[in-house]
Amino acid sequence: ARLWSRIPAEFEWLLIADPRHVHYLSNFWVPSLSFSGGERALLLLEREQRATLLADNFTAKSASGKHYVDREEIHTWYDHKHSVVNRDLALFEAVKRIRDRVYGRVGAVEAEWLPLAASEILAADHEVHALRKSISGVGEASGAAIDLGTLLRDLRRQKLPDEIELLKKCMAATAAGQVRAREVIRAGVSEFDVYREVHAAALASIGRPAYIYGDFRAATTELPKVGGAPTDYVLKDGDMYILDFSVVLDGYRSDFTNTFVVGGKPTAQQQEMYDTCQKGMIAGEKVLKAGVAAKEVHAAVYNAMQSSEYGATFTHHAGHGIGLGHPEAPILVPESTDVLVVGDVITLEPGVYVKGVGGIRIEHNYLITETGAECLSPHTIAL
Amino acid sequence: ARLWSRIPAEFEWLLIADPRHVHYLSNFWVPSLSFSGGERALLLLEREQRATLLADNFTAKSASGKHYVDREEIHTWYDHKHSVVNRDLALFEAVKRIRDRVYGRVGAVEAEWLPLAASEILAADHEVHALRKSISGVGEASGAAIDLGTLLRDLRRQKLPDEIELLKKCMAATAAGQVRAREVIRAGVSEFDVYREVHAAALASIGRPAYIYGDFRAATTELPKVGGAPTDYVLKDGDMYILDFSVVLDGYRSDFTNTFVVGGKPTAQQQEMYDTCQKGMIAGEKVLKAGVAAKEVHAAVYNAMQSSEYGATFTHHAGHGIGLGHPEAPILVPESTDVLVVGDVITLEPGVYVKGVGGIRIEHNYLITETGAECLSPHTIAL
Repeated sequence: ARLWSRIPAEFEWLLIADPRHVHYLSNFWVPSLSFSGGERALLLLEREQRATLLADNFTAKSASGKHYVDREEIHTWYDHKHSVVNRDLALFEAVKRIRDRVYGRVGAVEAEWLPLAASEILAADHEVHALRKSISGVGEASGAAIDLGTLLRDLRRQKLPDEIELLKKCMAATAAGQVRAREVIRAGVSEFDVYREVHAAALASIGRPAYIYGDFRAATTELPKVGGAPTDYVLKDGDMYILDFSVVLDGYRSDFTNTFVVGGKPTAQQQEMYDTCQKGMIAGEKVLKAGVAAKEVHAAVYNAMQSSEYGATFTHHAGHGIGLGHPEAPILVPESTDVLVVGDVITLEPGVYVKGVGGIRIEHNYLITETGAECLSPHTIAL
Repeated sequence: ARLWSRIPAEFEWLLIADPRHVHYLSNFWVPSLSFSGGERALLLLEREQRATLLADNFTAKSASGKHYVDREEIHTWYDHKHSVVNRDLALFEAVKRIRDRVYGRVGAVEAEWLPLAASEILAADHEVHALRKSISGVGEASGAAIDLGTLLRDLRRQKLPDEIELLKKCMAATAAGQVRAREVIRAGVSEFDVYREVHAAALASIGRPAYIYGDFRAATTELPKVGGAPTDYVLKDGDMYILDFSVVLDGYRSDFTNTFVVGGKPTAQQQEMYDTCQKGMIAGEKVLKAGVAAKEVHAAVYNAMQSSEYGATFTHHAGHGIGLGHPEAPILVPESTDVLVVGDVITLEPGVYVKGVGGIRIEHNYLITETGAECLSPHTIAL
């Protein structure tokens, strides 16, 4: 209903093709962690609020959880009796089954993801088909053309209660990983060892398969701002370790950070770098509220950090939205045109990186409300 | 070169869009376990063997490992200074940069994955553009039209030495998980506990982030053939546990199985079920060789199992190909038209499932050679 309220009246159907949007609208979703990871379904929405799922039978079988559609057009790709064709062709057989239903009616497709081959099936022999008509005047006061994917990304910003509940589960698991990191980070342990322990703790917390990604690297004197997957580098006393990671559950994700000083005894420089980040975070938290410009949040964080000589090394974003994507709007940067809305879930992540010393970043996640923000990330931030 | 040798001479360029095929041809690949999981790049191949990667800057940054292209057209989606647009639109900006290069030259696109919006960019103002011309006579004696995705799937069957090396790493990690399962499976432990321990052991073996998926369910008297993600079901003595899982590294995967009797004391019935599966596997192994029809392999497995009363419960495939996908050709089923080729990596997986007793499946992975098959899966199969 929220989507249809923003679609001009002449459009009678929409064909959704980005797997994240099929998921968002129907809860049909193929886990990355399955033998069908990377396979797709399509979702036909009709204005009378009928939803039809299009998929091959094995993609349908691999879906996680319960999905909510009125009809399914499932083409058998594999039956344990015959050879298989290119699996995509099975999806397109399902598309053929909706051709007559959309014939002659004005509709729009998510052209950013709809495969050309599926589009050609719908367009064949339909000369007056309005398949590629752009949706004008939707969501933009200027009346500029907008695409379905952009509109859906905008809708996704307003997190609903079930989404917030799921995000909180991700947050709890991430916090469990942060607790475990504090126990295991010490000289002699590798980045990969930390990763394994964090992973195991997050899994134990969440109680079902999920996955993690993020920065699991030591922020050393030589490489104070490196990120990404863990290596076999072995930590030594005085190293800093930026643990900035996400737990993904049903496509939704956390994204928060703590920095640890290996050995637990920060130097005066490390402590001042940390204090600089804390000042930024506190200043940013104070301005969080629906209606505030994202660039004002960045300015609050950045300016508060400039009382320290390390403040100038804070050159990345002050934060960004998270949800089914990462990063996504609102983006907290100097030239941002975004404005915070109720239901945004965002990060604040001040960081400073000093060659010869190391790097520090700290990060919390927040739900934006009418009156301020609720901190969702329950982890301890301390060196 | 292998691809171009199968493309008719009039085609001068190919636009590859399935992320698995971009990966296969260029080694450009965005890990599922990254903040860019689910994002895409495109690959333009030109007959003079020039390869051009098209991506947004954050997708490019998230790529794993080294990729091999001659040019890159990377459009800046995010610069830490400005708001972001719909990320797909950044990819399409990269597509605009190749428009002039392909103009007026005959080419083909991977229409199963190329987004309609990208296709429209290339087709705009190019009335004589051969964008959608199908490739006829490629790979099919019959001269039937074939699509690029089907041709690439066929090429993928012939695993090359670097792919086999990667598959062996997956196999070693999977075997480590199987060893750990044997240590931890006992009454009082949940399916999810087993999953966590197997996961941790596989990670420890492989030494860098990877992921696992598969069947982690008890095959109980009531549900002898259930599969999929682990639950909180607590194992009890006499239960059977079918551990059929894959480790995925850089998109490549293992897929092998053992069945455990909880408590370690098989009944006579369980033992006979196991022996039935072993007979099938041994008979299947004997016929594996390039040139053999996949349906003959199925027949060998199936027929050998029919000396037991449990053989009739073996109703699924006898095995299938694995690699960047799962399952994929060759498919070992009664009506298969596939023929084994050198370089196929396949599974053999006889299983029997008896209501009131439980389920057993065992599985190895093999590399098909001119003279037979090499077993790649180094795990112990025993109840």
